[in-house]
Amino acid sequence: MTRIAVDCMGGDYAPEEIVKGCILAYRELGLESILVGDEEKIGKILKREGAENLSVVHAEGIIQMHEPPSNVLRKKDSSLYIAGKLVREGLADGLVSAGNTGAVLTVGKFVVGSIDELERPPIGVALPNPKGKTVLLDVGANVDCKPKHLLQFAVVGHTYAEEILNIKNPRVGILSIGEEEGKGNELVKDTYPLLKVSKLNFLGNAEGRDIYAGTFDVIVCDGFVGNVILKASESLGFAVLQMIREEVEKSFFAKLGALLMKPALNNFKKKADFAEYGGIPLLGAKKPVIITHGRANARAIKNAIRVANEFLAHHFNERLGENLRRLMPQEVKV
Amino acid sequence: MTRIAVDCMGGDYAPEEIVKGCILAYRELGLESILVGDEEKIGKILKREGAENLSVVHAEGIIQMHEPPSNVLRKKDSSLYIAGKLVREGLADGLVSAGNTGAVLTVGKFVVGSIDELERPPIGVALPNPKGKTVLLDVGANVDCKPKHLLQFAVVGHTYAEEILNIKNPRVGILSIGEEEGKGNELVKDTYPLLKVSKLNFLGNAEGRDIYAGTFDVIVCDGFVGNVILKASESLGFAVLQMIREEVEKSFFAKLGALLMKPALNNFKKKADFAEYGGIPLLGAKKPVIITHGRANARAIKNAIRVANEFLAHHFNERLGENLRRLMPQEVKV
Repeated sequence: MTRIAVDCMGGDYAPEEIVKGCILAYRELGLESILVGDEEKIGKILKREGAENLSVVHAEGIIQMHEPPSNVLRKKDSSLYIAGKLVREGLADGLVSAGNTGAVLTVGKFVVGSIDELERPPIGVALPNPKGKTVLLDVGANVDCKPKHLLQFAVVGHTYAEEILNIKNPRVGILSIGEEEGKGNELVKDTYPLLKVSKLNFLGNAEGRDIYAGTFDVIVCDGFVGNVILKASESLGFAVLQMIREEVEKSFFAKLGALLMKPALNNFKKKADFAEYGGIPLLGAKKPVIITHGRANARAIKNAIRVANEFLAHHFNERLGENLRRLMPQEVKV
Repeated sequence: MTRIAVDCMGGDYAPEEIVKGCILAYRELGLESILVGDEEKIGKILKREGAENLSVVHAEGIIQMHEPPSNVLRKKDSSLYIAGKLVREGLADGLVSAGNTGAVLTVGKFVVGSIDELERPPIGVALPNPKGKTVLLDVGANVDCKPKHLLQFAVVGHTYAEEILNIKNPRVGILSIGEEEGKGNELVKDTYPLLKVSKLNFLGNAEGRDIYAGTFDVIVCDGFVGNVILKASESLGFAVLQMIREEVEKSFFAKLGALLMKPALNNFKKKADFAEYGGIPLLGAKKPVIITHGRANARAIKNAIRVANEFLAHHFNERLGENLRRLMPQEVKV
């Protein structure tokens, strides 16, 4: 039986929604967690919900949402650090946190650590498109990257697409501004030849418009570019909905129309809802590390625990290690 | 009377829609163009439309959509090059083209040229948000940038927001991944202090989510990042509409609802429609250079001609030159 260490003190709705998420994961999916945080507060919620059988590990400290991420390495009594330590010591099989993203990344990279073959674990996100999903990575773990890092990200994305999204021989691209080889910034131009000689199914440059078009299964970029794209996309979604809502408000018929469309819109929203997909994985950490949205509710936490278990069930890290040895071009092995 | 040189042979619907756009601009807005391209083909359309009074300058060659942009500097008989030359020689007051974007940029930078105070003209786009518009630049003219370039872009964006969008004392930000000073990649970290000591209304780091939130009036980034964001945004819009449409198709009531909502949706679409805003300006070229979408129709061309005239009427370049002398910090004057 696997057990995921869940940081119960991180996130906007901690500990209430986080604890409830662990209960849901256990009751609905039979998945066990170790709840890390203030024993008394967590205990009260568990008691009220009649779930006192769940494991709790006490932690005194909390990492605040706006603290410098590096603080977590000094605050060794924090729920996040202790959850990471449980994983490192083999007492837990994965980590879920809705806390300070930078701090979760820091714990993932330096407390849990990455597998030997990988220099820098990236964060990958499977973005929806009309034909399926496209893995974009890195979306924020590594700001300034070298060509060899992007090459490794490509193998990580390949493994994610193949093992978790069930895509055979995933089509890999590098994000650039123009289709032809030779287009792009220095990093892209230097990475392209490495990808070309790798054993990946490398299709060449992907453009911004390919991210939501389903023309690639995996698109690599540095963590700066990926992060601004991810956040811009989220905000564009909000802006579009708000602008449509304002137009709809002006007309009775449009309001009626919106009402009739609601079930269809809800189906669509479900596809794009972060609470459904559960969180964003730090890919290639020694054990699954899932970073959920700061606004994560119980359902999001339940799904994050599910996702962590999926990575374990698919032996993601073993596959990734094999792929990093097998698919990388010999001359740039790190 | 100003006259805009219009490249009639560039774009997916050239010359038909381009010529019609020039006719619309003249008939609806009283704005004159010089139509550059195949005299015979253009003449036929003008004759059919009863608009033979419009000026035509013959050009033998055409720059194809997928030609390497640098070709345009050798193909001196192409409609695009000749249109640029008319501007450089003072025979036309601006340039509009729906052709090969890279080639239009090349003509803008090297044939028309930029104003003396500016090292590298950026492309700026005013993106809609629920509260108004935010200028994002550079969205593709300059791939690898230095801090001083981003600083100049900020002044260009400030001038665009103030003169063209009528925003007083525009709030300027630099695109990064995290709000605090010190967050971001090397380029951002090196540019931040320059912006801080400039006389701009600099608010600090903007995040991806700020692009469509209305929290900044101007956001600067390098042309690689800006371009992928712009193209990803376009494709996300398409993807969302298609996914919603698929959900709507599944239900009779949802289809009825969509029908009732249509006028409201059309109002929204108008706000986001490229044919309405006419094109993207290369900011700081000696005379207005407007790059329209390859799929530009007559309405888009008409609006691009209108936009070029707006830049002239607002004395954009004079203001920009003044601002570059006035707002830049002394120590980094170029």
